[in-house]
Amino acid sequence: MKNTFGQSVSVTLFGESHGAAVGAVIDGLAPGIAVSEEEIARQLSRRRPSSPLDTPRQERDNFKILSGVFGGKTTGTPVCIVIPNENVRSGDYNYGPARPSHADYAAFCKYHGYEDYRGGGHFSGRITAALVAAGGILIPALEGLGISIGTHILACGGVWDRSFAENAKEDIASLKNSDFPVLEPERGTAMAERILQAREAADSVGGITETAVCGVMPGLGEPWFDSVEGLLSHAVFSLGGVKGIEFGLGFGFADGRGSECNDALRMSDGRIITKTNHNGGINGGITNGMDILFRCAVKPTASIARQQETVDFIKREETELSIHGRHDPAIVRRICPVLDAVTAIVLCDLLAQRFGTDILKGEKQ
Amino acid sequence: MKNTFGQSVSVTLFGESHGAAVGAVIDGLAPGIAVSEEEIARQLSRRRPSSPLDTPRQERDNFKILSGVFGGKTTGTPVCIVIPNENVRSGDYNYGPARPSHADYAAFCKYHGYEDYRGGGHFSGRITAALVAAGGILIPALEGLGISIGTHILACGGVWDRSFAENAKEDIASLKNSDFPVLEPERGTAMAERILQAREAADSVGGITETAVCGVMPGLGEPWFDSVEGLLSHAVFSLGGVKGIEFGLGFGFADGRGSECNDALRMSDGRIITKTNHNGGINGGITNGMDILFRCAVKPTASIARQQETVDFIKREETELSIHGRHDPAIVRRICPVLDAVTAIVLCDLLAQRFGTDILKGEKQ
Amino acid sequence: MKNTFGQSVSVTLFGESHGAAVGAVIDGLAPGIAVSEEEIARQLSRRRPSSPLDTPRQERDNFKILSGVFGGKTTGTPVCIVIPNENVRSGDYNYGPARPSHADYAAFCKYHGYEDYRGGGHFSGRITAALVAAGGILIPALEGLGISIGTHILACGGVWDRSFAENAKEDIASLKNSDFPVLEPERGTAMAERILQAREAADSVGGITETAVCGVMPGLGEPWFDSVEGLLSHAVFSLGGVKGIEFGLGFGFADGRGSECNDALRMSDGRIITKTNHNGGINGGITNGMDILFRCAVKPTASIARQQETVDFIKREETELSIHGRHDPAIVRRICPVLDAVTAIVLCDLLAQRFGTDILKGEKQ
Amino acid sequence: MKNTFGQSVSVTLFGESHGAAVGAVIDGLAPGIAVSEEEIARQLSRRRPSSPLDTPRQERDNFKILSGVFGGKTTGTPVCIVIPNENVRSGDYNYGPARPSHADYAAFCKYHGYEDYRGGGHFSGRITAALVAAGGILIPALEGLGISIGTHILACGGVWDRSFAENAKEDIASLKNSDFPVLEPERGTAMAERILQAREAADSVGGITETAVCGVMPGLGEPWFDSVEGLLSHAVFSLGGVKGIEFGLGFGFADGRGSECNDALRMSDGRIITKTNHNGGINGGITNGMDILFRCAVKPTASIARQQETVDFIKREETELSIHGRHDPAIVRRICPVLDAVTAIVLCDLLAQRFGTDILKGEKQ
Repeated sequence: MKNTFGQSVSVTLFGESHGAAVGAVIDGLAPGIAVSEEEIARQLSRRRPSSPLDTPRQERDNFKILSGVFGGKTTGTPVCIVIPNENVRSGDYNYGPARPSHADYAAFCKYHGYEDYRGGGHFSGRITAALVAAGGILIPALEGLGISIGTHILACGGVWDRSFAENAKEDIASLKNSDFPVLEPERGTAMAERILQAREAADSVGGITETAVCGVMPGLGEPWFDSVEGLLSHAVFSLGGVKGIEFGLGFGFADGRGSECNDALRMSDGRIITKTNHNGGINGGITNGMDILFRCAVKPTASIARQQETVDFIKREETELSIHGRHDPAIVRRICPVLDAVTAIVLCDLLAQRFGTDILKGEKQ
Repeated sequence: MKNTFGQSVSVTLFGESHGAAVGAVIDGLAPGIAVSEEEIARQLSRRRPSSPLDTPRQERDNFKILSGVFGGKTTGTPVCIVIPNENVRSGDYNYGPARPSHADYAAFCKYHGYEDYRGGGHFSGRITAALVAAGGILIPALEGLGISIGTHILACGGVWDRSFAENAKEDIASLKNSDFPVLEPERGTAMAERILQAREAADSVGGITETAVCGVMPGLGEPWFDSVEGLLSHAVFSLGGVKGIEFGLGFGFADGRGSECNDALRMSDGRIITKTNHNGGINGGITNGMDILFRCAVKPTASIARQQETVDFIKREETELSIHGRHDPAIVRRICPVLDAVTAIVLCDLLAQRFGTDILKGEKQ
Repeated sequence: MKNTFGQSVSVTLFGESHGAAVGAVIDGLAPGIAVSEEEIARQLSRRRPSSPLDTPRQERDNFKILSGVFGGKTTGTPVCIVIPNENVRSGDYNYGPARPSHADYAAFCKYHGYEDYRGGGHFSGRITAALVAAGGILIPALEGLGISIGTHILACGGVWDRSFAENAKEDIASLKNSDFPVLEPERGTAMAERILQAREAADSVGGITETAVCGVMPGLGEPWFDSVEGLLSHAVFSLGGVKGIEFGLGFGFADGRGSECNDALRMSDGRIITKTNHNGGINGGITNGMDILFRCAVKPTASIARQQETVDFIKREETELSIHGRHDPAIVRRICPVLDAVTAIVLCDLLAQRFGTDILKGEKQ
Repeated sequence: MKNTFGQSVSVTLFGESHGAAVGAVIDGLAPGIAVSEEEIARQLSRRRPSSPLDTPRQERDNFKILSGVFGGKTTGTPVCIVIPNENVRSGDYNYGPARPSHADYAAFCKYHGYEDYRGGGHFSGRITAALVAAGGILIPALEGLGISIGTHILACGGVWDRSFAENAKEDIASLKNSDFPVLEPERGTAMAERILQAREAADSVGGITETAVCGVMPGLGEPWFDSVEGLLSHAVFSLGGVKGIEFGLGFGFADGRGSECNDALRMSDGRIITKTNHNGGINGGITNGMDILFRCAVKPTASIARQQETVDFIKREETELSIHGRHDPAIVRRICPVLDAVTAIVLCDLLAQRFGTDILKGEKQ
């Protein structure tokens, strides 16, 4: 459905980088979910450019909730959140020469030249602010059900953080207020250095994120097509910077044998668990009660100040380009709250499909 | 939509491993697409167990088209293909002890014990026969539009095939009638050896597939959510054995810099192309006219004859299990035609959404 | 979604009048619903031609359940029901001259001549057998939740039956095994006479059906678009013979005043009810706990033996046509079980969306 | 999908009567459609209360387009239109006593008391302003393809207008700038009198609308479920005041015989037409090239100043209520532009599904 995702709980995105606003309509929420503007603001601040590691574009993200919230709680009808675009400098952009590895040329082919090209228009990472704002409602709702979500930078610029602990709950908690979401702070410092080096070199770096979800009951997911992996990957690949996703061992399965990779089942305090979690909490597309674990490959920011070969797709001739707008030398930090948000959307939708629309309220009706 | 995928062209799956039949309903096809039962049979034969590398379960796949085809062509109404299950030996299966890394326990949690557990029931790879049969109609329809799809085993048991050539068209053609789809036959021989070694060790091996799509016009895909990567990954993760997917450089982006990873654009014979194809033919979720390229991580077959620790989820107690049914020591070979089929479903759907339902007929109305 | 209806519980139809079979795939059913082949057969027998009032085409409706049922209960995975076409006499049909008020010419414009034209192909009322078979599973599941559905012929050939009683429950029960579903048997006799008169005159008659649903809890339905009226009408208009639908007073509201038409609310045995039910159990698209009531206008069978003016859309010239196949002089009788079935589909879907996929099982998990 | 309707072209609604704003997100529009703020304003003015016949609530409808329009044309990405609520007097409303025939009690059952009850909240006719604004973009786009839509009041308070002429094109044009949309102005005067009489009697009146669509090509619509009647009725019943819909002869078919009701086909200037249009331009759910014709039953405004019996659903006790807010004594006039808008949504969606997303641009790409 193009800019709408989800069946029972759905999110519809709109907006362009240099238009009036970006925003989201969240439909299908249970009535009675507490909505905290502080929590939405906190999520947005995690995504906001905040240091020399990020773009100098300043966004205050003065969001406004236009509907669906009454007396501090969801009404059960669509919540529309609008975030005006304030720090817009469209003069930074030029139409015709394609920015390599951006959507410029692909968008031109799709929209025949009618696209709002300023700052990437509808393809801009700016639209993820609306996803993060939605996360500011959905993530606390999931926490009310005992489900927590966290994402950290596993790798950036060649530096690796450690992976989530076997039970990720405490690690997730430790990420909650982190400026630079890593599990080992000194690794974050090293990553930040690499990012600054890239910026100085008029270049950018990529990375890998790791996301964990704790507290999901077994039995969630819909064969064949709406597997948990299928829905999460569908949502995650809405982010143009993500180019790979793997669950559990992921590509590590390729070299393994069944006897090494299978997760033995055991009883633990009356609960059925697996000894290892190579499958990332999902078997046959259905949750098995263990932590959901996935990693995403994030490509280096396509916008770099270096001179690059390209074509002007209007003139249809070769040209060169160096990009002097305001850009992040790495998006892997700012993508973490976005991944939390899209993960929350998928889980809320799966829960509502399985248990009904009232489940997110966290209390029996 | 659970067992239905696609919006304009959609596929609905049904069936269980040891039930009466598996099958698919394909809706939204243009009227007038030639349907060749030979081509469907050929696709099914690519997926069929055929050698000591595969399960000894014999499936004749005597499919029957119940609707939607008249005079050898699609009518434009739903095509229902049914493939009866013939070589069913349900006595091989037992209920209660979970086969590790299978969906058994997750399915029990979802279906409360009403699931058809025989041979994995609805979670069995057997259901992929219906996908492959659908591919037998869709793949030739795409070829009529100049679009070709091919998948080879890139890695298996530690042996690597070469990657697709820069222009994958000839490589794809070479795979068409391959029993063991690799680009370098001697690598296939080495892989087959590793598979047999695993079988002898009562074990199994995983692998990596690589898929290429040639001939797709630029401008296909729907931001934000129905990106080409999002739809392909959604469809691909319906296959329980797939645990990772990456497009273009994929996880290789993590270590790179923008200046290395960006794809410079150039003119070539009046066409706009990119010098490299690190993005796998997709920018911002939209095709850019280059080959679409993705790789999937396939886990080692979960069913192995070795003794494994598990629990009996009915008795809720620990037990041991060795699996003596008929199983593949590696599924990476048989998954290749399935990946071709799901890729074809996604492309047909995107084309029909973009250009209307008649596009697949390959001629102007 | 073309031939698929429903979001949480969905039905996908396939088949043509003179093809191999018609059928349906029902997805999203709770696991553990009892499936009675007798009940499916009973529903099919209600729709079957059975007297001089109907077409002489004999259909044994030897349906087969291919999937999704195990040990007499739904597994929770898709149920595919196939009904082979047995009494096929395609020689009765001719291509080119459009049967007036049939889909022939519209279908030709849509399918460019590739449509299976025999007996109306995919547009044939024959496909409703698959809907009725689905009803044979869904209707008992709803009864398990205390929800009952019934449809009678309110008017046919100028003869009117009485309307449902204020509480329709007993009336619905009385219809269950009726050959000719009316509330006042002598009215049925009069209607049957009119049908036979029409047949003798080489003509056909139309009618009005009335459907009631008892036992639906208040609060079902989804604003704005998935109102209960919106979903029911969407499903009902899949039947080509239906040309109108009204809820409660329906077109009778046009002449009324608010003071006459509003339904006053009262307490009754601790329950909130309305004194009248002019709104047919629905306010603002949401159920209010009263009986759902709607009427459908059914047009006279388009196939009549009289000579009619038409065009041959292949030759594009005017011609005349008299239809000598096997046809019903009135479809209003046979449409009643079909309306019960589509009503059941809508309710099951709304219930599953609201309360989760397990609700139809009729017991707490 | 709750508050989203349409598959290729979709509209998502949000807002409450007394919240910050109402609005719509329109997705799937072709790039390059001219967007005229004047035309949107003109459509909104047709819906606006404007005389003693309507509610005294004044709404300036200062809509704002937040996204999806660039340089006066659609970009092809979602268009978000927001209409702030300005003339809000929430003190007029009280919670607990259900307004008879309103959604109050049904909404309470659905939303458990969290609903924004002020002025009907999300169930208010106020939300239709967002539909009409969407119509302000879609209706001109259809006109660019030669498709015109018009709705008039066929009956109100016992007074009847004449029906559309055989070819409705000129009648539709005549309605375009009508304050009170009728085909015979003196009938409108008589209707207005009846409306004022009802107002003086502290009462309200219902009516019937008639909608025509000219210029639709044959072959549009998707069997079985997405028939043109099914989609139109689904969209139309989102309006809480509509309680019936009929196509062509509609309920008039009930008394007729096939020989009277069938539409004979003829050649006319090389085109295939029908002599009569009893089927309202639709056969088997597919357009046949004749005008689409349907009528809607609109109930008398539920809000009346007279004292009515009701219950307080919080206290669960009987009470009386007279409604002193600002209300329309008849909504049948103001619903006409809303019906035009929802009809336009359905047609744009069907066209885009059939011919691809670029069709609405009205030029070949």
